[in-house]
Amino acid sequence: MTGEEAEPTMAEPAGTDGLPGEFALIARYFRPLAGPAALGLADDAALLAPPPGRDLVLTVDAMVAGVHFLPDDPPELVGRKLLRVNLSDLAAKGAVPLGYLLAVSAPRGTPETWFAGFAAGLAADQASFAIPLLGGDTTSTPGPIALSLTAIGHVAPGGMVRRAGARAGDGVFVTGTIGDGALGLLAAQGRLADPTGFLRDRYRLPQPRLGLLRPGLVSAGMDVSDGLVQDLGHLCRAAGIGARIEAARVPLSPAARAAGADHLPTCLTGGDDYELLLAAPPAAEPALFAAARATGIPLTRIGVFHSGSGGVIVEDVDGTPVSLGAGGWSHF
Amino acid sequence: MTGEEAEPTMAEPAGTDGLPGEFALIARYFRPLAGPAALGLADDAALLAPPPGRDLVLTVDAMVAGVHFLPDDPPELVGRKLLRVNLSDLAAKGAVPLGYLLAVSAPRGTPETWFAGFAAGLAADQASFAIPLLGGDTTSTPGPIALSLTAIGHVAPGGMVRRAGARAGDGVFVTGTIGDGALGLLAAQGRLADPTGFLRDRYRLPQPRLGLLRPGLVSAGMDVSDGLVQDLGHLCRAAGIGARIEAARVPLSPAARAAGADHLPTCLTGGDDYELLLAAPPAAEPALFAAARATGIPLTRIGVFHSGSGGVIVEDVDGTPVSLGAGGWSHF
Repeated sequence: MTGEEAEPTMAEPAGTDGLPGEFALIARYFRPLAGPAALGLADDAALLAPPPGRDLVLTVDAMVAGVHFLPDDPPELVGRKLLRVNLSDLAAKGAVPLGYLLAVSAPRGTPETWFAGFAAGLAADQASFAIPLLGGDTTSTPGPIALSLTAIGHVAPGGMVRRAGARAGDGVFVTGTIGDGALGLLAAQGRLADPTGFLRDRYRLPQPRLGLLRPGLVSAGMDVSDGLVQDLGHLCRAAGIGARIEAARVPLSPAARAAGADHLPTCLTGGDDYELLLAAPPAAEPALFAAARATGIPLTRIGVFHSGSGGVIVEDVDGTPVSLGAGGWSHF
Repeated sequence: MTGEEAEPTMAEPAGTDGLPGEFALIARYFRPLAGPAALGLADDAALLAPPPGRDLVLTVDAMVAGVHFLPDDPPELVGRKLLRVNLSDLAAKGAVPLGYLLAVSAPRGTPETWFAGFAAGLAADQASFAIPLLGGDTTSTPGPIALSLTAIGHVAPGGMVRRAGARAGDGVFVTGTIGDGALGLLAAQGRLADPTGFLRDRYRLPQPRLGLLRPGLVSAGMDVSDGLVQDLGHLCRAAGIGARIEAARVPLSPAARAAGADHLPTCLTGGDDYELLLAAPPAAEPALFAAARATGIPLTRIGVFHSGSGGVIVEDVDGTPVSLGAGGWSHF
């Protein structure tokens, strides 16, 4: 316990000569990420004029070495994934990203190359998604690297896509392909062949589906981070209804198909896809597919919400419930 | 590395029966802290309509067990301090708090009483400062408890108090008393007598000086977290000027005075006071003191900014520079 004076924040004076190493670290790696609202990371807070007449959407995710990433994962990818999982939440809520704040706790002796790589990853994705760093804090820790990121976006008033809102008769839709994240984790652990590296890349670098949603297009939505069936269960519970999906309609990548049918339960229940899971009434379906085409985001209808309260049922083509692995049936 | 499915966020379904223990934990301890914008912590993001025509002020601070607090510190106080250090930043920027987001990484097996106490501390201070929890994330960690909190406030456009802005001739002002935080840390470590517990309480429970500042009252400001002299150095560097303060004018609490003159350097350079350090021109001084009286916040003028570039000089009553401990003079 050293007192705060040993703990530089990202808000430090502009001159770095003669300052402790961590101040220089902030100046060298994080200040280049800062947008105008961050005041050069040289003040105690960020100053943001919110877009007039818009609602703000705020989300936070934490990632810890040894839990959410491996200590020897490339730091570029750690930075990019941290940013992207938060942007995926904004995408699922129909929000336009504004910027983010960052807290980094790292053990003393973390090599400077780790910070350089982490910041380079953030820089690359900031540029891709056109958002700045607004502010942050760095501290030491006696434990593993612990990161958290708060992302801020905006939507038209009343336009945020909610978890609650699906209605019986709405279709169940997903973007992209499902299961690559979970299979990619198996591949990263050496438990699944992944000759092209496609699955591992999908696990390490989610693709936030920004720009697809706009007010009125869907009745409910979230991103698939805990697994398709579990997350669809969340949408069902939030609405007090049930859903049926057809296993054969769930879009799989060629790499996931190549992994074999034995891995289908993993695809349906594994996490880390960061695709969007949406509910939309039949009348809105043409507009939703048109938006998908306009943004180049693949979209598939995989099932339907119904008025029952039986949670999520995964059916085979003939309507038989599909087993999702040892002892578990598709009743969530 | 377990994949995201083992990592509940605070955004989980309302029903907790049958859900994993950590979901129940969130429902039991964190959902009661959530304001309307948090959507019951049952969505993936918070939805906040910012006050029309106001700028937002955003700040983030991280705290790690073993660095910023002791693992056996009362969790109530940990929660309160985490919230208060962020509110102190908002206070120093002249902002009105709106709410906060929270990330909690805790080892598996952290006793439920820790979460209960931590949330109770947050609840008490939320009520005191009239702000809600907007959203959050909980994860496990193989290391010590790691916390981060992002606080959001608002100010009139252009009204945020900056670090940069002090001018030669401005007075140097502080709120409250200086040095109690650093002496309280010594007391908590058993290195200083603290018969009444006053110093330890001041270390553990900062008092954010909200409500004092309004646009135009001061030319620059920040909170004293790294130590008075170091933080005054930050204001000087941001403005490209110097400052002189008179040691005898620095307000000390009776408990700090009782610690003896040997501890004066600690008071002037130690951290964790979370008082405000302000610059104001002579013409604004009456209004600043009137605001202090109106809010019941003690305010003291301790020195003056000057056009030199020599950083911070601490003077004795006769103008002699004061030594601030082993080998160090008051030249920062």
